[in-house]
Amino acid sequence: MTRATVFGSGSWGTAYAAILADAGCDVTIWSRRPEVADEINSTRRNGGYLPDLQLPDAVRATADPREAAEGAQVAVLAVPSQTLRDNLAQWGDAIGDDAYVVSLMKGIELGTTRRMSEVIAEAASVDPERIVVVSGPNLAREIAAKQPAAAVVASTNAMARARVAEASATPYFRPYTNGDVVGVEIGGAVKNVIALAVGMAKGMGMGDNTMASLLTRGLAETARFGIRLGADPQTFLGLAGVGDLVATCASPLSRNYTFGFKLGQGQTLEEVQASTKQTAEGVKSCRSILELATSVGAEVPIVENVAAVVFEGRRPADVVEQLMSRSRKHERS
Amino acid sequence: MTRATVFGSGSWGTAYAAILADAGCDVTIWSRRPEVADEINSTRRNGGYLPDLQLPDAVRATADPREAAEGAQVAVLAVPSQTLRDNLAQWGDAIGDDAYVVSLMKGIELGTTRRMSEVIAEAASVDPERIVVVSGPNLAREIAAKQPAAAVVASTNAMARARVAEASATPYFRPYTNGDVVGVEIGGAVKNVIALAVGMAKGMGMGDNTMASLLTRGLAETARFGIRLGADPQTFLGLAGVGDLVATCASPLSRNYTFGFKLGQGQTLEEVQASTKQTAEGVKSCRSILELATSVGAEVPIVENVAAVVFEGRRPADVVEQLMSRSRKHERS
Repeated sequence: MTRATVFGSGSWGTAYAAILADAGCDVTIWSRRPEVADEINSTRRNGGYLPDLQLPDAVRATADPREAAEGAQVAVLAVPSQTLRDNLAQWGDAIGDDAYVVSLMKGIELGTTRRMSEVIAEAASVDPERIVVVSGPNLAREIAAKQPAAAVVASTNAMARARVAEASATPYFRPYTNGDVVGVEIGGAVKNVIALAVGMAKGMGMGDNTMASLLTRGLAETARFGIRLGADPQTFLGLAGVGDLVATCASPLSRNYTFGFKLGQGQTLEEVQASTKQTAEGVKSCRSILELATSVGAEVPIVENVAAVVFEGRRPADVVEQLMSRSRKHERS
Repeated sequence: MTRATVFGSGSWGTAYAAILADAGCDVTIWSRRPEVADEINSTRRNGGYLPDLQLPDAVRATADPREAAEGAQVAVLAVPSQTLRDNLAQWGDAIGDDAYVVSLMKGIELGTTRRMSEVIAEAASVDPERIVVVSGPNLAREIAAKQPAAAVVASTNAMARARVAEASATPYFRPYTNGDVVGVEIGGAVKNVIALAVGMAKGMGMGDNTMASLLTRGLAETARFGIRLGADPQTFLGLAGVGDLVATCASPLSRNYTFGFKLGQGQTLEEVQASTKQTAEGVKSCRSILELATSVGAEVPIVENVAAVVFEGRRPADVVEQLMSRSRKHERS
């Protein structure tokens, strides 16, 4: 039986713990907050995030990261992406040298413009061959409801990805392996920003042609950017590209889409932030994504425009209009 | 001023005529039914298809195909795809030798498994270098409402695609050129079938993860199939691939999606056909698509399963379940 630990008790960490348990693993959740660990241990629920999910008996929780890490063959990291480095500085050394380290996080680190797998390798001295990235169209609340979903399990190491795919395969969660870590991580990070733009357009009352056109141009810009970093273009055609982006842009469950939608309806950034518990990941990371893209010479007009809305107070209406009226050209450019 | 003729007065033909007129062309619509031509000429409306669209003054109509074709520099074909060959046999010779011939049709001919551009070349002896295919996320009713949309204008000939892109560029319709006719046509034809499958899943009450997973696997199967025919994989990442598929699967305006949705809700094929005016294109062409895919050795499990529902009475629930539970594998396969 595989011993797995999920670090982080947010929606996706908790849902992924249920997947691992349903796939036959013995699972520990580390929660920063002791009261959440207590709630999980006593009621098998995480009411603050996934109130409808009854966790399997194989899941228990602790607020002690070192206790959580003990004996883990699979260590899953599901903390907020901008806190990853600090978290690993505190307890990263407790992860065993022979464990596979799985990233569920989607973002680019502010300041360093590092991808999450790079932060893991640096901050916890993990061999990149042991790092695995899981991504795809995986809205946590639907996974918790056992709605069928597919996902990508990516690692440069074939054994690592096969092992993690096996440890998380259930009748409702279908992992596909992939060797392109860079593409999977860039797809996951940039889609949050594209979802903001698509949300803005829908919030302005635009129809599905506009939504699909923006989504597609967003995917093209993500692919161009990823290719500059060495990603395989085909990854963006897959679950961590199109799949994740489509699920995010289709769902009122997505924080990024919803955040953009409210901006499109005319609310100010401050109003939207006040009405949502958390700042959307795309808002937080659009600056580092733009910085990384610029550093490799990739043109990312949608990311650039979203950053202008978020940091320079540009009107969403101007952005959508500008994005839809760029000069005619070849589709590949 | 460009003289353009649109053959076919359905939703998309009529909306495209408005685009051409708004882009500065002098436009004639050919309608098989004289009463529709009369309605357009007297009221500038096509009430049966797009009741809310007021056609520009530059659009007129006739029921005489030879009168319609006269002097046309751009001849747009927008008849039902399975009637194209018969139509061209009747009046294809009236299209001038120096006209660009534009296909708006999405389908594969039953019996011959020919793409629409191939039927045009064969049945009207048109030089393939003069054939242009227009596709993308272009729900006709939204175009008619002047919602911003992007599209692909594809031809093997750079001058032909540039010329048609120019003739149809308006502030709300943004054409991108592309040289991959095969990819654009395969994307357009297969997406109707994928939309049926996605509609079935949504009709069964599945969530957005399932929708996005099926859509992505559908796109992967379309790309694998297209590549066998010589298509460029990147086309499927673009407006005629992802873009068209996403708009179709997101919209209750799509006949294919809606047809699948009703099947997923438990209606029989006969009940759905009785409740919709037209049979969805994906229902009509899934057999020829499957035949063409099989002939080039491409595996198309979603198309195959949709065909089984349509022609063998398989239950949509079995299909969705089977598609989501195929054995674990690499994402590229």
